[in-house]
Amino acid sequence: MKHLLSTRDLTPGDAIGILDTAEEMAAVNDREVRKLPALRGRTVVNLFFEDSTRTRISFEAAAKRLSADVINFAAKGSSVSKGESLKDTAQTLEAIGADAVVIRHSAAGAPHRLAVTDWIQAAVVNAGDGTHEHPTQALLDAFTLRRHLARVAGTPSAGADLAGAHVVIVGDILHSRVARSNVWLLTTLGARVTLVAPPTLLPIGVEHWPCAVSYDLDAALDQAPDAVMMLRVQAERMNASYFPSTAEYSRLWGLGDERFDRFDTPAFKDTVILHPGPMVRGLEISSTAADSDRSQVLRQVANGVSVRMAVLYLLMSAKESAR
Amino acid sequence: MKHLLSTRDLTPGDAIGILDTAEEMAAVNDREVRKLPALRGRTVVNLFFEDSTRTRISFEAAAKRLSADVINFAAKGSSVSKGESLKDTAQTLEAIGADAVVIRHSAAGAPHRLAVTDWIQAAVVNAGDGTHEHPTQALLDAFTLRRHLARVAGTPSAGADLAGAHVVIVGDILHSRVARSNVWLLTTLGARVTLVAPPTLLPIGVEHWPCAVSYDLDAALDQAPDAVMMLRVQAERMNASYFPSTAEYSRLWGLGDERFDRFDTPAFKDTVILHPGPMVRGLEISSTAADSDRSQVLRQVANGVSVRMAVLYLLMSAKESAR
Amino acid sequence: MKHLLSTRDLTPGDAIGILDTAEEMAAVNDREVRKLPALRGRTVVNLFFEDSTRTRISFEAAAKRLSADVINFAAKGSSVSKGESLKDTAQTLEAIGADAVVIRHSAAGAPHRLAVTDWIQAAVVNAGDGTHEHPTQALLDAFTLRRHLARVAGTPSAGADLAGAHVVIVGDILHSRVARSNVWLLTTLGARVTLVAPPTLLPIGVEHWPCAVSYDLDAALDQAPDAVMMLRVQAERMNASYFPSTAEYSRLWGLGDERFDRFDTPAFKDTVILHPGPMVRGLEISSTAADSDRSQVLRQVANGVSVRMAVLYLLMSAKESAR
Repeated sequence: MKHLLSTRDLTPGDAIGILDTAEEMAAVNDREVRKLPALRGRTVVNLFFEDSTRTRISFEAAAKRLSADVINFAAKGSSVSKGESLKDTAQTLEAIGADAVVIRHSAAGAPHRLAVTDWIQAAVVNAGDGTHEHPTQALLDAFTLRRHLARVAGTPSAGADLAGAHVVIVGDILHSRVARSNVWLLTTLGARVTLVAPPTLLPIGVEHWPCAVSYDLDAALDQAPDAVMMLRVQAERMNASYFPSTAEYSRLWGLGDERFDRFDTPAFKDTVILHPGPMVRGLEISSTAADSDRSQVLRQVANGVSVRMAVLYLLMSAKESAR
Repeated sequence: MKHLLSTRDLTPGDAIGILDTAEEMAAVNDREVRKLPALRGRTVVNLFFEDSTRTRISFEAAAKRLSADVINFAAKGSSVSKGESLKDTAQTLEAIGADAVVIRHSAAGAPHRLAVTDWIQAAVVNAGDGTHEHPTQALLDAFTLRRHLARVAGTPSAGADLAGAHVVIVGDILHSRVARSNVWLLTTLGARVTLVAPPTLLPIGVEHWPCAVSYDLDAALDQAPDAVMMLRVQAERMNASYFPSTAEYSRLWGLGDERFDRFDTPAFKDTVILHPGPMVRGLEISSTAADSDRSQVLRQVANGVSVRMAVLYLLMSAKESAR
Repeated sequence: MKHLLSTRDLTPGDAIGILDTAEEMAAVNDREVRKLPALRGRTVVNLFFEDSTRTRISFEAAAKRLSADVINFAAKGSSVSKGESLKDTAQTLEAIGADAVVIRHSAAGAPHRLAVTDWIQAAVVNAGDGTHEHPTQALLDAFTLRRHLARVAGTPSAGADLAGAHVVIVGDILHSRVARSNVWLLTTLGARVTLVAPPTLLPIGVEHWPCAVSYDLDAALDQAPDAVMMLRVQAERMNASYFPSTAEYSRLWGLGDERFDRFDTPAFKDTVILHPGPMVRGLEISSTAADSDRSQVLRQVANGVSVRMAVLYLLMSAKESAR
């Protein structure tokens, strides 16, 4: 593996390899001195064309724990705005010494262009491109779910896939790169996925995706899934004509207190709640649900660092041996 | 001590313990290689909801000298503006691996909420909250004054308090977190404090503070204090109706050349001038005063790094042993 | 050498000393672990009053490879805007622990003021001051050219000057600190320089500079120079009355495909193309020229890190021994 662009390209073996490496990284994160010398003398550049403090600092923490040098490049106000192309920006970063470029871009496919055109030799990590993919988010979701299932089953995580698990993903699927990356990855790992969304927030062609699709959250919950992933409602979309009113959204597709009460039955004993954050409490999720024992939200964040350590480590050592 | 939220909570023993540790850190800062391995593998997050480059880079330098990893989080343009609560932001930072959160916030009490509610286990350091407190600033002021008094007396700093010292603090007390933190700390350490301000720039209830209050700078100076601390005039206040005109402020509450001439008498032989910076030369202080030998301004900045090293070190090793 | 303010002050021996040290740094950059312990425990502050991501991250990468701690200070939104003077800002940074201040400023001469007035003891590196100088850019250009000439001649770079080389610099000389710094440095190293520009984009007094001046790019190219350096056209100038139209500029002073075809003759066998970046493709340079084998653009960027490592190393160890 030379780059991480999409979860769609990952074989089950690739994916399990990343998750197993992330388990080893998580063990480092539990130690007193959370630092490995693995990437000493290597440089990771965070090339962010969109603001995303959470994702940026998660990659920054991951790289620093591996002893890499980190350079943050916020494209706003930079030479990008002086007319420089993505190609020139990326090649400049490589010339400065980037061994990996972590890129967040508003245009779907931007990371692919960097990687596939061989503009640069550095490892490219997609940290979110438009409404397309956000592969490390899906990997941390899968990692969190795998750990949960192993805990319930009393078996080890390492080596396991997600065969037999059922995940319901709820919300604005149309604009969600998190949903896309999760559909590919979770199904590759053997899980079954149901997407639930208002009709106007489903993408064209979703019927060809390897998952079930529904408009009815309560019907989906009737199946007592292993995990319910609530997507963030993006405020900037909420007044668009294709978007339900806030009240309607919350009532039909939110995980409010009343709906959360349904979880209090034996069928839901081991059901967990996932959310990529930041949460808009009271809209897509109530505080009761968000702060309950079922919520994996903070575990997801912590696991994100382990997963990103694994990705950087695997890509950058692959690059090393290819020199 | 688990957090540093306020100087009001500090016992004399706490305060002297921090200052003594800062003396040891200052010795490191005088060495050729200014680096200690004490916090290697630990992460300090600077969570700044308000811009404050000086304070941020002082904490950043302090953490790096202790070999900690530093992550800067400017809340502007972050998920905070996407509707995330302070609680979720803080818990996310902890999940990413923050061992200490250094927080600057426009709302008085924000750091307390983080610490007292047990939202996070990380050490919380108040780097300025609204008009409430700025404890590391007061600690560096006390450290600077203690060193000065020890130099004059020919005695060691370590272990000493400020008993018998008299400090005059001049300016916009109403809006000054620096003044508040200093009043509590200096009096805890045994010093006597006189506040001098225009009547409209004194807070309600100041008569219950453990200090003298005056409108008359010249009368306060008649006592030949050990230190005169000039506060910064905040430009954004200056056209408010409760604020004197610039000329009037400067004449009555500024340390101009004429007033500074009064220091040329034996009674003022060892009087020093303090200022938290940045100075507005010509308004609250003249360049003659600011650049004189009495001025401790740059020593305060240098001591700020030592004091912040001490605070991070004490809080983060306390956390360590509590694990 | 205590500071690097201008290439005008450099003797041939100074310049060759920097370039030779940069050769040693380049060797480090070719190693697997690109890290030297030379500046461990030292602090470099990037004090940028103007945005310049490329230059800032090049210095940041250089300092980190030498194991220095790096603190980035973007002057926007900082205490500078609260009325603090350059002197107070710089002295504050030194008090916080800066051993070197890398300064980018819109005012010509700002770095000199810091250095010459002895406001601070830290090493001052000019990273671009107004339209005045940008010495590390000229040094990396000279480094790149010297390596090229050595490669062609089959001789070692180390110790060599640029005697006998001819460099044509094309574009907006009036506003270009890159052009100024190059004229002084290249001629100091024995090269011959020809400036080519529209008449309105030449500075007053250019006739006294140690170089030839022409309005006619084709005539200058008739001499088959060793290097052609295309300057960036700054978009913000393009509608000014003294600026040619975009089409006219491109036709007369751009390196378009047609003009680049002229290089396909034996006389141009070893001619290289330099550009400080970021390139505005299609205006001052065509993509064919920019991406050709003659283009040194990415080598310039990579060499920039080596040159800046050399400068920081030489200045900061000089400072050390002067303690």
